Amino acid sequence: MRATIMHKAGDVRIENVPDAAILHPTDALIRVVRACICGSDLWPYNDMAAAGPARPMGHEAIGRVEAVGSDVHRIKVGDLVIMPFAYSDGSCMFCDEGLQTSCKHGGFFGQPDPGGAQAEALRIPLADGTLYPIDAPNDDALTASLLTLSDVMGTGHHAALCAGVKPGKVAAVIGDGAVGLCGVIAARRLGAEQIIILGRHDSRIALAREFGATDVVRERGEAAIDRVMRLTAGAGAASVLECVGSEGAMATAVGIARPGGAIGRVGVPHYAGVAGGQRGFYHNVRIGGGPAPVRAYIDDLLPDILEGRIEPGRVFDRAVSLDGVPDGYRAMNAREALKVMVRP
Amino acid sequence: MRATIMHKAGDVRIENVPDAAILHPTDALIRVVRACICGSDLWPYNDMAAAGPARPMGHEAIGRVEAVGSDVHRIKVGDLVIMPFAYSDGSCMFCDEGLQTSCKHGGFFGQPDPGGAQAEALRIPLADGTLYPIDAPNDDALTASLLTLSDVMGTGHHAALCAGVKPGKVAAVIGDGAVGLCGVIAARRLGAEQIIILGRHDSRIALAREFGATDVVRERGEAAIDRVMRLTAGAGAASVLECVGSEGAMATAVGIARPGGAIGRVGVPHYAGVAGGQRGFYHNVRIGGGPAPVRAYIDDLLPDILEGRIEPGRVFDRAVSLDGVPDGYRAMNAREALKVMVRP
Repeated sequence: MRATIMHKAGDVRIENVPDAAILHPTDALIRVVRACICGSDLWPYNDMAAAGPARPMGHEAIGRVEAVGSDVHRIKVGDLVIMPFAYSDGSCMFCDEGLQTSCKHGGFFGQPDPGGAQAEALRIPLADGTLYPIDAPNDDALTASLLTLSDVMGTGHHAALCAGVKPGKVAAVIGDGAVGLCGVIAARRLGAEQIIILGRHDSRIALAREFGATDVVRERGEAAIDRVMRLTAGAGAASVLECVGSEGAMATAVGIARPGGAIGRVGVPHYAGVAGGQRGFYHNVRIGGGPAPVRAYIDDLLPDILEGRIEPGRVFDRAVSLDGVPDGYRAMNAREALKVMVRP
Repeated sequence: MRATIMHKAGDVRIENVPDAAILHPTDALIRVVRACICGSDLWPYNDMAAAGPARPMGHEAIGRVEAVGSDVHRIKVGDLVIMPFAYSDGSCMFCDEGLQTSCKHGGFFGQPDPGGAQAEALRIPLADGTLYPIDAPNDDALTASLLTLSDVMGTGHHAALCAGVKPGKVAAVIGDGAVGLCGVIAARRLGAEQIIILGRHDSRIALAREFGATDVVRERGEAAIDRVMRLTAGAGAASVLECVGSEGAMATAVGIARPGGAIGRVGVPHYAGVAGGQRGFYHNVRIGGGPAPVRAYIDDLLPDILEGRIEPGRVFDRAVSLDGVPDGYRAMNAREALKVMVRP
């Protein structure tokens, strides 16, 4: 079968690899209906060393179940399923608490084991715990929104929850990538009254406004902090959604957080320590977040998508076949595309 | 009047200074009944530069009100009062939310303005918002416990709240100083079932056990992390109370936190960034805390002290007159004394 393999920074190829297959009784095999390229895929696209092993890419998908192992009972052949970016057994103490990303037997897609979703097919470990069957009409816009439940919409929601977004309060969203834009949707959905987006790409800002952003801050660093303070009568934002993962973004987050407020960080951190340890301390700012347990959030978000109240699928502004994936990486990295959908 | 003045590291003197007096209509003047030396006073005792201005010391006190300004209405001459370590107007938006340490018009005692509590008397800004009048029998043990509501007991409670201590769960307390020991009291009071104290001073550990600690970890660094993991079936502590403030202590806190757990940090941070940004992220660990709004917590903690359910005053193991204060600093710094009370 054909799959997306990254060899080193800037070198993504579509290759023929051994067919995905059931290996364990708890596995399922899915045919990938839709996949996509994630902002987090751009980190290795920019800094992956040539020395290490090649890496199969892709951790977001809607799929059709083609086969199941002998110990799979809940998922059936023919099911249309959402594949969260982490697999999980659905039964350990962390899964019970809704933190499937810390599942004792779980792991992440887009690794040599179990493989990546930017491919024709994929083996799904712990299928009963991992996959979420859906019954939805065949509609392109709807399918795009359902695909975001694999990662970006659930991740934006996680940022909003970790930042403690509350009705009537101020939320600030750092980053206008797909996760940041889904963070705007999530903040509005949870009732934030003022939603400040920090970003500088015109088309993304326009979409953020459609999603509910009330204010735009195009500045960075200290200038951005000053501007948010002016927009909030000097108090800062009760909730800050940090959707980038750079040290500078986290420093801005700490800088704009209201005393007693909270930062939800979902950008994969490219820093060793959380910046602003001192300021965050003196202002009693809470810092939380991490990989979103998107599996847990599907129950909550799915009805809003099926009934048209939110349309996170609008973050996709380009679609490619598998052959187009390498150019999709290039386009996303060059900020020509916001988020690229893959139709294998 | 006589007051404690720090000139540089290791150089603490009792000096004659101008009498404390009412300066603003919202001020009160208190005669200090009890004060004490704080673990945080040891930071400048170890690293204060000789170049800067001298600093009046002390931010914890029980006092008797001697005079009030013309705009003080709630506090009366003759009141016995608890003085929280931060002064606050009691009416701004942050005070309304119970975060008096971020009061828009507030500040901290133990600074040139308004002065320090290791003295005969002290001016109290914003007296109506700051002081907490109490009606308590004249009993040395009780007065000692009431004095801890100025800082250490409220601070330990803040650590426990920020760490989300819950009934039946595991709490770990890093540090066996007065705040850590009060953190043990707070964790037990909030219902933690297993309370692990990380410390290595025999007499303090013995007190921690009396306060409710169920397990003791004397190791540090990786060895401490391994030991806590063994004590918690590999999961870690749902709540970690970081009561030291060093980078190493915070790294240990991140290392022993359960996935999805929380760290409440109250040790004044002597680090720039919060260590463990990566591990904390991948395990969705929440990091919160800061200066405790002890003013807000008196309502909750006072009845437990007056009715004898908690005895945080037991952290005092030495008492001195003002003349004995310099030796009190020496003894606390040498770990000869756990916490030194001052009877001016």
